Amino acid sequence: MNTASGPTSFHIPTLAVVGVGLIGGSFAAALRQAGCVGRVLGAGRRPQTLQEALRLGLIDEAVTLTEAAERADFIFIAAPVGAFAAIFAALKPSLNVRAVITDGGSTKHNVIEAARVGLQERIVQFVPSHPMAGSHETGPQAADASLYKGKRVILTPLVENHPQDIERVQAAWRACGAQLVSLNPAQHDGAMAAISHMPHWIAALYMQHIAQSDDAALKLELAGSGFRDFTRVAQGSPEMWRDIFEANRQAMQNEIAAFRKVLERAEHALNAGDYVYLQDMLEVAANARRDWAGNQS
Amino acid sequence: MNTASGPTSFHIPTLAVVGVGLIGGSFAAALRQAGCVGRVLGAGRRPQTLQEALRLGLIDEAVTLTEAAERADFIFIAAPVGAFAAIFAALKPSLNVRAVITDGGSTKHNVIEAARVGLQERIVQFVPSHPMAGSHETGPQAADASLYKGKRVILTPLVENHPQDIERVQAAWRACGAQLVSLNPAQHDGAMAAISHMPHWIAALYMQHIAQSDDAALKLELAGSGFRDFTRVAQGSPEMWRDIFEANRQAMQNEIAAFRKVLERAEHALNAGDYVYLQDMLEVAANARRDWAGNQS
Repeated sequence: MNTASGPTSFHIPTLAVVGVGLIGGSFAAALRQAGCVGRVLGAGRRPQTLQEALRLGLIDEAVTLTEAAERADFIFIAAPVGAFAAIFAALKPSLNVRAVITDGGSTKHNVIEAARVGLQERIVQFVPSHPMAGSHETGPQAADASLYKGKRVILTPLVENHPQDIERVQAAWRACGAQLVSLNPAQHDGAMAAISHMPHWIAALYMQHIAQSDDAALKLELAGSGFRDFTRVAQGSPEMWRDIFEANRQAMQNEIAAFRKVLERAEHALNAGDYVYLQDMLEVAANARRDWAGNQS
Repeated sequence: MNTASGPTSFHIPTLAVVGVGLIGGSFAAALRQAGCVGRVLGAGRRPQTLQEALRLGLIDEAVTLTEAAERADFIFIAAPVGAFAAIFAALKPSLNVRAVITDGGSTKHNVIEAARVGLQERIVQFVPSHPMAGSHETGPQAADASLYKGKRVILTPLVENHPQDIERVQAAWRACGAQLVSLNPAQHDGAMAAISHMPHWIAALYMQHIAQSDDAALKLELAGSGFRDFTRVAQGSPEMWRDIFEANRQAMQNEIAAFRKVLERAEHALNAGDYVYLQDMLEVAANARRDWAGNQS
C-alpha cells in the first residue's frame, strides 16, 4: 500500500529578486511560467532597469531592499558579487523569519563570507547556489524563462541551513528546469576557476594582446572560426568579470600559477626543438577534448 | 567600343593532388564541381587513403609522385608541412615544364625554403598559397566541394614566379569560391602565429592542464559552453599541429614570448589587487572582440 502523496506542490507566495537582469529576470520568468510564484518584487540599484523589468512583466512591483526583506518568502540575489556585502547588510534588519535567501553568484567562498558578516545569526536562512547558465547578452530584455532548462545549478549548503530551506531552494531550481549538484564551497570555487574563470582570463588577455599588437588590423581581418570560438567569452561584461576575478582571487592565483608552469614547460620544449614532447601534449589534449565532447552529447 | 572578351574559361586538363584528405580532396571536388578540371590524379603516402579517395570519386587515378610530376598541368600539395621537402625533391626530376605547383600549407617561410632546396631552378613554377579553411574532421570522407566557398586564401607569390602562373593559381582558387589576399611570407607567418597557431597552442595546453589536474572528472563534468568554445580547436590533429609549430617555430617563439609578458603583467595586477588595471584590460578585450564580431557579419 503506497500512501505517499505526489510531489508537494511548490509555491512561493512572494518572491523578491535583487538585480532584475538576465539571471534574476530569467529566474522570475521561469518560476512564473511554472506557476510557482504569486507576487514578484524587484529591487536593484538602477531605477531604469527596474522600470524595464516592470514593463516586460518580469516583476510586479519595484521595491527597496528593506521592503523586499519584510515581505518576501523567497529572495534571489542576482547582483554582481562585489555588491553582495551591502545587500546582505541591507536585508538583515527587517528580514522575514520565514524567508529563504539564495543567490546566483559565480563564486561561493566570498559570497558566504559576505553573508556571514551581513546576515549574522540569520545566515541559517541563506542557501548559496550558482546557476551555470548565462549569455553574452545582459539586462532585463535578455531574460528568458527557459535560460535554466537542462542547465546545472550548484548548491553549496551551509552546516547551519535547515533541511527544509535547502529543499525549498532545490524545488525552485527544479521548477526552472535545472539539474542540481551539491559541492562544498572550496571545491566549487576551485572547479570554477579552472573551467570557467581561466578561459575568460586567458581569452581576454589574448584578445587585448592581439588588439594592441603590430599589424592588428591585418590579423583581425584574417582571423577565422578558430579565433572566433577561442575568444568568444572575452566579449562578456568587464565589470562582472572583474568582480569574479576579485571574488575568486585565491583560486585564480592557484590556477594561474599552475597554468604558467604548463606554458613554460611547453615554451621550453619548443625552444629546445622537443617535438616529441609537443606531440604527446597535443595528443593528451585532443583525446581529452574528444572524450569530453563525446560525454556531452 | 569594348573589345574585351569575357573571363577566359579556366581549365586544368590534368590536376594532381598530393595528399587526398580534407584539404586536397575538397580542392579536387570544388574544381570538378566548377567544371574546371579534366583528369584528377591522386598521390600520397597511404594506399588506403588513395583507395578511399578513388571510391569517393575525388580522384580518377592513384599515381606515384613521379607520375604526377610528369603528367599534371597543375599540382596541389596538401600534405603535412613536415613532408614538403621530400615531396618537392620527388617531383623535381620529372616535373612537366608547363606545370604550376601550389600548396595548402599553413606556414609559408619554411615551405618556400623546402621548395627552393627541392625544386632548385624550378622554384619559378611554385606559387605558394594558404587556404584559410578547415574542419576538425579529416580524411577523404570529410572532403567537401564547398569547403573553400567564401573563405580566404592567402597567396605569397615569389619574385621568380611568372605572372601567368600566379594567375592560374588565382583562377583555381576563385573557381573554388575563395577570396584572395596577397602577403609576403613573413607577414603571413607572423599573422598566422598570432591569430591561428597561438589559439591552438594555448587551448591545447589548457586542455592538457585540466585533464591532468586534481578533480579533473568533476571539472569536466561542470564545464559548459564557454569551456566548449575556448577548447574546440584543441581537438585538431596532433600530428598536423606539431608540424605547424615546428614549421612556424620562429614566429611562434615571438608570439609566445610576447603573450607571456601579457600574462605576467595581469598575474602581477591580480596579486597586487590592481582591479583597475584588470577592468581596463577586460574593457579593451571586450570592445575589440565586439568590434571584430561586428565586422564579420
